[in-house]
Amino acid sequence: MARKKIAVLGSTGSIGTQTLDVVARDPEAYEVVALAAGTRTDELLEQALRFKPQIVSVATRELADKLSGELPAGIRVVCGDEGLIEAAAGAGADTVVCALMGSIGLASTMAAIEAGAAIALANKETLVSAGHLVMKLAAERGVPIIPVDSEHSAIYQCLNGEDRKAVKRLIVTASGGSFRDRTRDRLKDVTVEDALKHPNWSMGAKITIDSATMVNKGLEVIEAHWLFGLPYEQIDVLLHPESIVHSMVEFTDTSVIAQLGNPDMRVPIQYALTYPHRHSSPAAPLDLVKAGALHFREMDLERFPCLRLAYEAGRTGGTAPTVFNAANEAAVARFLKGELPFLAIESVIEQVLGKHRALPQPELDAILDADRWARREAASLF
Amino acid sequence: MARKKIAVLGSTGSIGTQTLDVVARDPEAYEVVALAAGTRTDELLEQALRFKPQIVSVATRELADKLSGELPAGIRVVCGDEGLIEAAAGAGADTVVCALMGSIGLASTMAAIEAGAAIALANKETLVSAGHLVMKLAAERGVPIIPVDSEHSAIYQCLNGEDRKAVKRLIVTASGGSFRDRTRDRLKDVTVEDALKHPNWSMGAKITIDSATMVNKGLEVIEAHWLFGLPYEQIDVLLHPESIVHSMVEFTDTSVIAQLGNPDMRVPIQYALTYPHRHSSPAAPLDLVKAGALHFREMDLERFPCLRLAYEAGRTGGTAPTVFNAANEAAVARFLKGELPFLAIESVIEQVLGKHRALPQPELDAILDADRWARREAASLF
Repeated sequence: MARKKIAVLGSTGSIGTQTLDVVARDPEAYEVVALAAGTRTDELLEQALRFKPQIVSVATRELADKLSGELPAGIRVVCGDEGLIEAAAGAGADTVVCALMGSIGLASTMAAIEAGAAIALANKETLVSAGHLVMKLAAERGVPIIPVDSEHSAIYQCLNGEDRKAVKRLIVTASGGSFRDRTRDRLKDVTVEDALKHPNWSMGAKITIDSATMVNKGLEVIEAHWLFGLPYEQIDVLLHPESIVHSMVEFTDTSVIAQLGNPDMRVPIQYALTYPHRHSSPAAPLDLVKAGALHFREMDLERFPCLRLAYEAGRTGGTAPTVFNAANEAAVARFLKGELPFLAIESVIEQVLGKHRALPQPELDAILDADRWARREAASLF
Repeated sequence: MARKKIAVLGSTGSIGTQTLDVVARDPEAYEVVALAAGTRTDELLEQALRFKPQIVSVATRELADKLSGELPAGIRVVCGDEGLIEAAAGAGADTVVCALMGSIGLASTMAAIEAGAAIALANKETLVSAGHLVMKLAAERGVPIIPVDSEHSAIYQCLNGEDRKAVKRLIVTASGGSFRDRTRDRLKDVTVEDALKHPNWSMGAKITIDSATMVNKGLEVIEAHWLFGLPYEQIDVLLHPESIVHSMVEFTDTSVIAQLGNPDMRVPIQYALTYPHRHSSPAAPLDLVKAGALHFREMDLERFPCLRLAYEAGRTGGTAPTVFNAANEAAVARFLKGELPFLAIESVIEQVLGKHRALPQPELDAILDADRWARREAASLF
């Protein structure tokens, strides 16, 4: 069997390096044809020497020139927005792992879909901001968008072989983040240090805050809406502190199918590469006896207003989800710099959304405009 | 779309009446073409007048003659073993629900498979005693054997769209029965009344005892071995007191897929009729928040020796599982009559199995011989 050709956009980030871990374990199965990163050229050089892709992409011409000198002649080094698109669409990849951070991932994901590659999607802006464009193009080109996020991968797995019409609702589980047991009152004086202790997953600062505010779950709900083509009424969030049930699907016959596992991103990453098959994984098998008990609690939208705001932005649609996401990013950056208290994150998002007049069915330019506008607004509000 | 033609063998039993409940809710989807029962002719008459099958089968010629007079001329009344086979194979059913109790179900199930009907299987002897014959014939005829039992239905659902080669193990859940929290010592003086209180499912006397001794789970393990074509090493049992997770499948990539729901047999029955689709159900939707917590504990084969005996009988194969089942039936009948103490059930099974020389690859006659032999042995042992 021919090896599957993989392009990894964002190869030096957390998802990118774990993708290459998965690929390296099974050299008979995969061939890396393109790697794209930003400015971490040391790691990228090492990756390129190891995996020998056809194309390597970096942020700037300067970095590209530097890298060219250190790589064998057979590897083409490209750069900038065009370089990303070449890495996504120019190396004949069967699957493109889209793991760039931020809105920079959008154009290259679209290019990869246009080129007919399956998409292993780990960039949330792609669906939050441009779900209507991405899913439409993917349907036209007949390419699957396979989510890498553990919750969406769980739902994707639960829907395997099922009739989409038989879905009653998606149940996205949420650990509840660092402060799930604090009252609203005790959230007022949360510090940056407090916020960065996440109980189950070890993550970056931004995502840890988003997990504590439940913004992350809100973005996942919006992504689920696009990925699985379901209205928001059919997407629920359930508190599940152990993070063992990664998400569930309830069907019209009342059956609930759930996907469970230890928190290890290599499992959903690998699933996105092997789908519809499964390969063995180095992840630790789940021990339910050791886990002992799995708990479930109602999600409280009063307690987590950012989740309510995400549902509202999702229902409004158009540019509103972009504004929700951009306002949050700006507010979290200010919180991490000590400029805002923790609870101001939600009030900044709410204010920015309140001022925004959402544009329906936006094209890429309008999305980027709304993104910039929201960040500017969020920078000055309190 | 043409209505699906259904034959129900064992239509007046618990599974049979619930099957007709499901069918009655969706008259556009189903047409009942045959009904077979034993001696409960009052219920059968009512069912026949309501569902107007082509064929009705009862135990004896006498009952058949009586019923004939009360049914319209278009309904043919048949009887005995041949009548069962006619109901199974002579009415052109698309799906035959095999819900007869005991070894009487075997020949009619084989006849239904031979006729090319999909099998909704609720008769445990079929696979426990004749799994090697049934699955071989089903494979030859290309007909699906869709389990009705909640645990096997759960596994069947979890395997939907999956690669069988990617299965690492099946995890069959067990409520633990009425005495799951008693020590071995406190099992000595269990009474019939004690034994008939099952915490989650409301069931008949026999099955309630089998649930307390874990014989029921042992039979399910043997059935799973045949249904899913996996060795016993890949079939585990896990204590799960809430009976909400009906069973699970662990895959080679460490993902675990589980099926959850309230205990309502109409859901797996309906699934066997609608597979690969799902219809809406009158069952109560699962409320995980109300459930609060799901617990899992190791299954202790010292505490439940009948489960160990089932694994041993399964691994021995041939006529051993038939003997395991028949010895248990005889022993439970004696317990229910007050002839044996509770813990004698396991010792009777163990003694009968110890005396048995298993015949490999038995045909139907040899299976029935082994069954009779085991019952005779169990009747005199203590």
